[in-house]
This record gives sequence, C-alpha cells and structure tokens, in this order.
Amino acid sequence: MRFGAGIWLFGQFVDRYATDAYGPAVGTLEAIEAAGRVGDIEVLDINFPFTEGVTVDEVRHALSANGIDAWCITPHIYTRDFRAGAFSNPDPKVRAQALALCEEAVGVAKALGAPTVKLWPGQDGFDLPLQVDYREVWRLGLEGVSAVAAMDDEVRVAIEYKTKEPRMHMSWSTAARTLVGIQQMGREDIGIVVDLGHSLFAKEAPADVLHLINDHGRLFTVEVNDNWREWDDDQPVGAIHLVETLEFFVALRQIEWDQPILLDQFPFREDPVEAARSSINTMKAIDAAIDRIDMDELAEIHARQDPLAAHRLVTELLLGQAPVA
Amino acid sequence: MRFGAGIWLFGQFVDRYATDAYGPAVGTLEAIEAAGRVGDIEVLDINFPFTEGVTVDEVRHALSANGIDAWCITPHIYTRDFRAGAFSNPDPKVRAQALALCEEAVGVAKALGAPTVKLWPGQDGFDLPLQVDYREVWRLGLEGVSAVAAMDDEVRVAIEYKTKEPRMHMSWSTAARTLVGIQQMGREDIGIVVDLGHSLFAKEAPADVLHLINDHGRLFTVEVNDNWREWDDDQPVGAIHLVETLEFFVALRQIEWDQPILLDQFPFREDPVEAARSSINTMKAIDAAIDRIDMDELAEIHARQDPLAAHRLVTELLLGQAPVA
Amino acid sequence: MRFGAGIWLFGQFVDRYATDAYGPAVGTLEAIEAAGRVGDIEVLDINFPFTEGVTVDEVRHALSANGIDAWCITPHIYTRDFRAGAFSNPDPKVRAQALALCEEAVGVAKALGAPTVKLWPGQDGFDLPLQVDYREVWRLGLEGVSAVAAMDDEVRVAIEYKTKEPRMHMSWSTAARTLVGIQQMGREDIGIVVDLGHSLFAKEAPADVLHLINDHGRLFTVEVNDNWREWDDDQPVGAIHLVETLEFFVALRQIEWDQPILLDQFPFREDPVEAARSSINTMKAIDAAIDRIDMDELAEIHARQDPLAAHRLVTELLLGQAPVA
Amino acid sequence: MRFGAGIWLFGQFVDRYATDAYGPAVGTLEAIEAAGRVGDIEVLDINFPFTEGVTVDEVRHALSANGIDAWCITPHIYTRDFRAGAFSNPDPKVRAQALALCEEAVGVAKALGAPTVKLWPGQDGFDLPLQVDYREVWRLGLEGVSAVAAMDDEVRVAIEYKTKEPRMHMSWSTAARTLVGIQQMGREDIGIVVDLGHSLFAKEAPADVLHLINDHGRLFTVEVNDNWREWDDDQPVGAIHLVETLEFFVALRQIEWDQPILLDQFPFREDPVEAARSSINTMKAIDAAIDRIDMDELAEIHARQDPLAAHRLVTELLLGQAPVA
Repeated sequence: MRFGAGIWLFGQFVDRYATDAYGPAVGTLEAIEAAGRVGDIEVLDINFPFTEGVTVDEVRHALSANGIDAWCITPHIYTRDFRAGAFSNPDPKVRAQALALCEEAVGVAKALGAPTVKLWPGQDGFDLPLQVDYREVWRLGLEGVSAVAAMDDEVRVAIEYKTKEPRMHMSWSTAARTLVGIQQMGREDIGIVVDLGHSLFAKEAPADVLHLINDHGRLFTVEVNDNWREWDDDQPVGAIHLVETLEFFVALRQIEWDQPILLDQFPFREDPVEAARSSINTMKAIDAAIDRIDMDELAEIHARQDPLAAHRLVTELLLGQAPVA
Repeated sequence: MRFGAGIWLFGQFVDRYATDAYGPAVGTLEAIEAAGRVGDIEVLDINFPFTEGVTVDEVRHALSANGIDAWCITPHIYTRDFRAGAFSNPDPKVRAQALALCEEAVGVAKALGAPTVKLWPGQDGFDLPLQVDYREVWRLGLEGVSAVAAMDDEVRVAIEYKTKEPRMHMSWSTAARTLVGIQQMGREDIGIVVDLGHSLFAKEAPADVLHLINDHGRLFTVEVNDNWREWDDDQPVGAIHLVETLEFFVALRQIEWDQPILLDQFPFREDPVEAARSSINTMKAIDAAIDRIDMDELAEIHARQDPLAAHRLVTELLLGQAPVA
Repeated sequence: MRFGAGIWLFGQFVDRYATDAYGPAVGTLEAIEAAGRVGDIEVLDINFPFTEGVTVDEVRHALSANGIDAWCITPHIYTRDFRAGAFSNPDPKVRAQALALCEEAVGVAKALGAPTVKLWPGQDGFDLPLQVDYREVWRLGLEGVSAVAAMDDEVRVAIEYKTKEPRMHMSWSTAARTLVGIQQMGREDIGIVVDLGHSLFAKEAPADVLHLINDHGRLFTVEVNDNWREWDDDQPVGAIHLVETLEFFVALRQIEWDQPILLDQFPFREDPVEAARSSINTMKAIDAAIDRIDMDELAEIHARQDPLAAHRLVTELLLGQAPVA
Repeated sequence: MRFGAGIWLFGQFVDRYATDAYGPAVGTLEAIEAAGRVGDIEVLDINFPFTEGVTVDEVRHALSANGIDAWCITPHIYTRDFRAGAFSNPDPKVRAQALALCEEAVGVAKALGAPTVKLWPGQDGFDLPLQVDYREVWRLGLEGVSAVAAMDDEVRVAIEYKTKEPRMHMSWSTAARTLVGIQQMGREDIGIVVDLGHSLFAKEAPADVLHLINDHGRLFTVEVNDNWREWDDDQPVGAIHLVETLEFFVALRQIEWDQPILLDQFPFREDPVEAARSSINTMKAIDAAIDRIDMDELAEIHARQDPLAAHRLVTELLLGQAPVA
C-alpha cells in the first residue's frame, strides 16, 4: 500500500458557525511539512492558488525536502468568485475566470510533475426547484471540463463527484452520472476520482462503483475517509463503516491498484498529523486482514451470492472465532 | 395530457405485516374494469402472468370493452422463484426461467399490441457487504436485459430503475446507472422508464434526469406518484413534493411528451379508483397551472439561475399575489 | 449472554412484490420447533393470534418441549382490520377491536407465563400532509396503550418504536418520542423495546438511547439486527454497522443487562435457523471481543472525548496491531 | 402575522470551501440596518458577542432607529473555543467559559429588553462511535442549560434543536429529545425553539411537533425556512416543501400563535434583504391561502383521517379546480 493525502488535511478549517476557524492559519509550505511529519505520505493533492505569496519553486523545494511528490493540482473553483458556479456559472466572465484558473493549475501541474489536475466543481449545480435549465447547466459543465482537458496533452483531468455541498445539488453527483458525462465528452484524458466517503454519502456500494469505473478505464485516483452517510464528514478511514471499507480495499486489491491511496480528511477538532496516522494505521491493519481472507472461500461465497457466509467471513475476520460456550 | 396506469394500482395489496392483505383478491379482468371506471385511463401497464386462469383473449376483450390499450407488459420477475434474483440469480436454471417468462411476456405484448415489455428486476442486486461479485452481478444483469431485447424486433424493452426494495440494493438503481448499462449493452431497443417517485427516492432532480434520458434518446415511458423521499411509498401525485412535481411536468411539456403518463400508486388504505382520480385531477390542475407560467420569465430566471425569482414564480403560481398589508 | 428471538424469524415472509411469499407457510408450532433447533434460543416473542387452529395448550407444550419460555406476546394490531390504525383508527369500533385483541393477548401472556405484552402499533400514524389532527392521533395512541397497560396488574406493556413501515409515519417513532408519551401516560407498567435496527433506522446512536431509556427505568426488552439505516431491513447482527453494534453491546454490559437479547430478523432469502445462528455466533464473538477491551482505557477516552483514540481502540480490537512496515 | 429574523441572515457567510466568504464582512449595526430595510421585520434574534467594538448602546440605538425589538440574544457557544463542545466540553475550564459567555448574554438580553436567551449548542455531541460516554455528555448538557436558566428570573432560555452540524451528532437533536431533557431539568423557564427547517431535517412532521411542544407549554419561539431534508440548507420559506410548510402555518394558526415568526435563512448567493422579502411574501400568501381553507371540511378530513380528501383540499387550494376536459 502506498499513501498520500489532500494537502487541505493539514490546513486551517472553518465552517459557517466557527467563523473564527477551528485552528490557526496554515500556509501551503507548513502544510507540506506537516504532511512530511506523518511519515507515510508519498504524494499530495495540492490546492492552487497556494497561500499568499508562496511560489511554485518554494512548493517544489518543500515537497522534495519532505520526500513527497505532487499527485494532483486542485484549483480553487469553489471560492467566493465561483459561489454561483464555476464552469456552469450564469456569467460567461466568471466561466472564463474559472478556465483561466484551471489553465494556471495545469501549468503548475507540469511545473511540479503532477500528472493530473483534479476538478471538483463544488459550486456547480443548483439550490432550488425551477432555478435552472438542467440541460444548460449540464452542457456548460461538460464544456468546461472538456476545455480543461484540452489545455495540455500531458496533464489529464480527474473529476471528483459528490452529491452536494457546498452547492445543495452538485452536477457531478455520482459515479454513474460522471461516467455518463465523460462518455458525452468523448475524451480519453478525463477520468474520475473515487472518494470512498463521497461514495458512501451517495448511497453507492463503494466497491461496486470502483469496479464499474475501473472497467470503463476511468479510475484516475482514489481518496479515502468515512462519514455518517448523510454528509461528507471526512472522518478517519473505517471509523464508522468498517465492513464496507474492508470490502472497498478488497476491491482495490482485485483491480491491482498500485497507485497511492489519498486521505481526504477534515480533522476539525484533532491534530491533523495524528488524524492521518490513525487512518494509515487502520489501512495497514485492513491490508493485513485482507491477507488473512481465504480468497477461494470468498469466490465461493460470491458464486452462491451467500449473505450468511459473507456475514460469517466478516465475523471471523474481525472478531475471531466465537467461543464455544 | 393523456393518462394510463399500472394495473397493480387496482389489485390486491399485501406487505410483510398485513399478510392477510389490505383488501380482497382482485383478478386481472376485474382490475381492468376498475381502471375503466376511472374515466381517463387510456392505457395500462399489465403484469404477466395474469391471475389464475385468465387468458390473453379475455384480457384483450376486457381492454377493448373498457376502451383501454395495452401499453407495457411487465413480467413478474420478482416473485418467489426469483427472490434471489432473476437475471443475476446465482443459479443458471433460475436465470433461464426468468428469460423464459420474459419471452412469454414478449409474446403477450405482441398479442395485445403493446409496444414495450417493461423490466423491473426488483430482486436483482444484493443485501450485504461482501455478498456478491459486483462485476458479475452487473454483467449478468446486462446479459439478461440484452437477451430479452433480442427476443423480438417489434417489442422494445424499458428498464425501470429503483434504488431498493425488495432487494436492499438494486442493480438498476438510478437514471445515470441505467444509462451506463444501456450504453454497455449497445442496443437501440432498450430504454428507460422514468418513475417520478423512484427519481425522488433516488434523491435525483426528476426534471433533470427526464431531460438527460430524453437527450440520450432513451425515454420510453413515464410513471408518476409521490413519496417521502426515503421509500417508494407510491402515493398520489403532488401530495408531498408539489413543487418538484410541477417542475417535472414543466419538463414533460418542454420535451413535448405526447405519450400517456402512467400512474404507479399503491392505495393500500384507499379506494383505488378514487386514488387514481385524485392524482389525475391534480395532474390536470398542474397542467392548467403550467399554462399560466410566463415561459419568457422562466427562461430569464434560468438565464440568471435566479433562486429568489424561481421562489417568487412558484409562490405566485401556487399561492397567488400576497395581499398588500 | 442469553438469547431469544421473535417467532416471526421462523415464519413465512411475504412482501408487496413476492406476493406468493418467499417460502411455504409455517405454523406457530413449527416455528417454535425451528427456534428450538437453533440451539441457543431461551425465549420467544410470540405473535397472537397463533396460526389457524393452534391452541394455547399446544403452544405451551411446544415451548416446553423445546426448552423455551414465552418472553412477550405481540398482538397482531397491524393486519387488514387495522390497516388504518389500531389505537388511533378513526373508527371507534376498530379501536375497540384492537383493545379486545390486546386483552386476549394479555390473557395468553398470563397463560404462558410471559411477563410482557409487546405493542407495535405499526399502522398508527399517517401517510400524507394535512391528513390527520396530530394531537388527536397522539391522544388516541396514549389512550389505547394506557388501556392495555390497565388490563392486568401482572402483565406489563412494552412499546416498540419505529419511524415508519407499514404506516409511512408512525406515531411511536423514536426513543425520545416514546419516553415523552410514557411520561404523559404516567404509568409505571409501560416501557420500551429497544430494537437496535429501529434505532439505527431512526438515525439515533443506539448506545445513547439504550442508556437514556434505562436511566428512565423504561428498558423492558431488547431486540437486535442490522440494516442499511434507511429501512428496517432486519438483517443479521453486525453485518453492516459492526462498530456501532459493538458499542451497543458495550452499553448493554455497562447497564448489566442480564435478560435475553432477542433476534428480530427477516431472513427473506435464507434458512432462518442458519440466519439466527449466524447472528448468535457474531454476538458471542462480540462479547468475547468486549472482554478484550481495556475498560480503563475506554474510560480515559471518554473523559477526553477523544475520537482518534476511539478509532485506534476499534482498529486494534477488530483488526489487530497494524504490521510495522 | 408578525415577522422577525435571525440577524445572521444579514451577515457574512463562510463555509469550509469558500473560505474567503460568500461576501464582504458585515458588522452588527449594518446587519440591523439591513433588517430594517426589509420592511416587515419587527424583531431580531441577535448573536453575542457583537462584531468587533460594537457596544450594547449602539445596538439599542440601531434597533430603535430601525423600529426593531430584540427578541432573543444568542451567545456564540459554537466558535473555535467551543469546537469540542460548550456545556459538554470535556474541559471544565471551557465549560466555565461557555457559562460566562451565556451570563454576559443574559445581561445583554436584559439591557436590550429581550425576553429570551437562545441556546444552540451546535458543538455539543459527538463525532465517532465509542468516542463519548453518552450519559455524561447528556448530563453535562442538562447541567449547563439549567445553569443558564438559573442566571436570571426574568430571562428565560430557549433551546434550538438540530440533528447535526457542526457537530456530527448533536445532543439536542429532535423535539422529543429536547422535551425529555427539559423534563429532566424540571424548570419552567426552559423552552424550545421550533425551527421549521430543523424539524424537516429531523424527518419530523413539523406541525405535529409544534403541537406537541405547545401542549407541553414549551413553545418559546418559532423560526422558519426550508431545506432538502438532508441538511440544514436554510432556504426561503416554502421553496421546496410547500405543502408541509402550509400545514405548519395552519398549526400556528390553530395554536393562535401571535408572536413574531423569525426567518432563519442563509442566503449564501443572494441579496439578504431580497431573500427575506421573498420568504415574507410567501408567508403572507400562505396566510391568505389559509383564509380560503374551509376549516369545517378540514375537521371532517381529520375526523376520517382521509388522505385523498387532504390531497384534493391541497390541490384545490394551491392549483385551483382542475379544468373539466
């Protein structure tokens, strides 16, 4: 297993209530150093623009000083200027501004050797019934993502889907909806970020959509966390939905995923380095547990689609043999 | 507006608690007569097999006696024999049995002049984590639906998606997932049933997916009802989500839908004829209300993606001008 | 740990789609014998009326022949006659019929030595907005439960809450709502059934409400199962939400629960005896796992309200120490 | 109808993604002036502390200059210092700090003539399984609220419940849970804020809990908005759930609520004055619509608990008579 993280894990968190933030401001370089302290982080998904005054060279040096590679560059297309949408904003000037920011991000990706620009259009969608022309919002979304993909032959684009937040309904809502859009765009250089938490939130079976996306050749990157299935809580891996998390990691092994697995956590009330270590510890323990699964037995369970045998397998794997009273 | 219904609306309802059923047994012919009593039902979606001893000729006569056409034939691929799945059942014998039943249904569709066999694989999917090989369950589902589509050149297949029930997770779960599967099958004669209630249940924006499916040329039939968005309650149209229901009917007008709109209700505790009339009355009133919408104003709202203007439009349409205090 | 079950676990299942049932009919006496075959079932929650023609004496003999005691008698107040409500039915004749059936159930409880009549008013509530006078429906519900409690000094009443199904909104919806009603009724002989699955379905923290109800002196009986948190799926214990299930059993130990824990499962597609054994096996394994928890460590975690330490405790308990790479 | 608002409606919004805020900073005095511009705002729920450097006298003058009274003072017990809880924070120093802030708020309430201090303990609760001792968290919550209620004989305390956000699980989660806690505290000067949106979010029937709380003598204040039922979206009144919103206002009339109804909106992307006016316009239109309801007919519907008659009443009220084809 190889690990990475979204740099935001090590940043400052704010929400609409704790408007004075959950902790002090953290610069891009500090965040990279914090990622380095975790000990297992090979790569980072880095937001762009960086914090005030930080240069690409400084980021490159901070990354190499911490033995970390740039995995994705994720442009901030969901901040104030884009509050009514980035690619599908009703104002063409704002749409152009979003594309200009993405173009910068593509340049930064090349400069830092990151293969991917990640697009998370968190403000693209709608809030109320009858507010939008759904066809037009979708068309503009496809147009925008296609334009970013066309910016550079070496840098590919990965779409991160989520059902909502901050927009109450996001355009790129589920794995299948994103695949439909990708097929409409008809480009090979556009893929998908499977975020385990977003998949749980979308009420998907994460292992199912991981395979579906991989079978379509669109699995570009993987993020992990956990939540209460009603919101993107970005909690430590396996803290709540351990059984489905285990199944997701079995699926990652089945597809022979050898790329880094990135943490997408928001440790609002915890130390970020400890929060990252806690998830990595759990993932290593899950990986060791998967080594103990009899894959022939699992194949037989699957051949029979046997729920009770699956229940017993999970029980014995996670709880051990029940004592004979 | 033209109306139709699923014949089950007029049948006997049972659930896992009221095992003595919510009312007396109702035969296929009685159900057709009840549909005729509603007064506005032009077409029926008819389950096959019919109730004990009823012949195709008897059904044809009952339909014509009531001035009703057969719209879909829907085979019972979710009863006891198929409790562990129809097309994706782990037992090849049961899969063959499902296809045989569908072949009969295709024959009945031709005999009754119904253009469509509706497939609702309500038992295809899974119940527990680690129970199934998702890739194989999906592959079998595609194989089964394709096989039914290939049975006859004149009879097309419409897939009705739902997220769950009776299977805890159904393979054909959302509009987008169904589109992905249809693209994988690569046939022109396979389309989608948009059920307004299933779309609300899937947390989709029904007007959005109606357009998406129509733009893909896959909108074969439309069913309507309402629910509490957490289960397929099959309640009267617009009884709970009136604003989104209004928006859905605006979308039907935008795509110039001139086919019947079918009721999919389960009036467990009500008279079915009255329940159907109540929904039809509401749909006629919605249609009249849509006539009162200034479509230029709506277009301007959409151009601005203006939520407050949408709110005002809905308020004035449904509540009238607020009194000036 | 002591175990019991709801007798329905061993019965015939039907739903609104598999109207020919998921399996053959099962009589009350057969169901008792099946419960006996499980091997660990000490007590049963028994539905009344029994299946056709079965007498109280036959039930008594079947129970003793299988070494099982009657734990609760649960009257069928949610079948056809009560489809529009039992205690809160708008028709006073039906309300009287419900009370008469409950009175019979009280007599059967005494005859079989069961300390409790369980009331699950699954049809009491409402389906649509503006349908009911909420105050009156609630008042009638309190009146009905109070009347049953007053029927006999030795037989107490336990209310099983659930948010919905079969009624779309049930009156006795959550743990707290049920406590409010019990306080309004002002009787000591009315308590609550905590059903782990109903609590998950209600989006409660099951361990939290177990303590809340116990601290109010109203915890009369406990049922267990698992679900997908959006419906009462009645699946095997710990199959989906293992971590919260573990926490629930920690809470049962904290309150020194020494009464039987009853299975409430609907093994639609599985062998019921095997389904029951699978849950019991998991509960025994959970119990053994709880023995391995350092309760001082847990107390320190609770003193600090430390989420990462809780995450680590669960990881080490269920997955073991992560290997040092 | 009388109207009010939470002052935050007119303030600056930020969330975890648009960390540069959705608009410019807004001071307490500016927000009061904006409220005055709405035209129908009689009262405000005012957060304390005020923005930097603003004095109680300045607030008093701004209120009177705008013809607005102070309705509630709501202390900021959910900002950074209280991120791990206010009343139930594991650190007694932070709990004391929360009480000290509440004491200041009580003083401000007296100084501004506000009858109520509103407590919204948005950080009190938990995030992960096994993190907290639920009994202790609940006990501390009761202790804290009681302490605030005891601070002054003239100022009463209103608890605003919400299921989650910012804490993933909030202690004061539902109407019934809050009533249980109030009964445990045993004080007459502690009541409840019914927020229509929080009630929809909790999957309650808002009209039902309004009556339940009022019948317990605990309805202290009412807030309104709408949402998608899965999050506290704080959208304009009736924009999504118009039918249930109508029913809620019928219930307010039934209890003869003559106090102000406060807006709790977060117009992230809209002009706040226009957003407030849009909701007030809708509420006035709802009020006029309720005048058109035949209350005898509604009483008969309720006597029969008749869902189809309720459906027809809503259809005719909101859509008018359907045209006779």
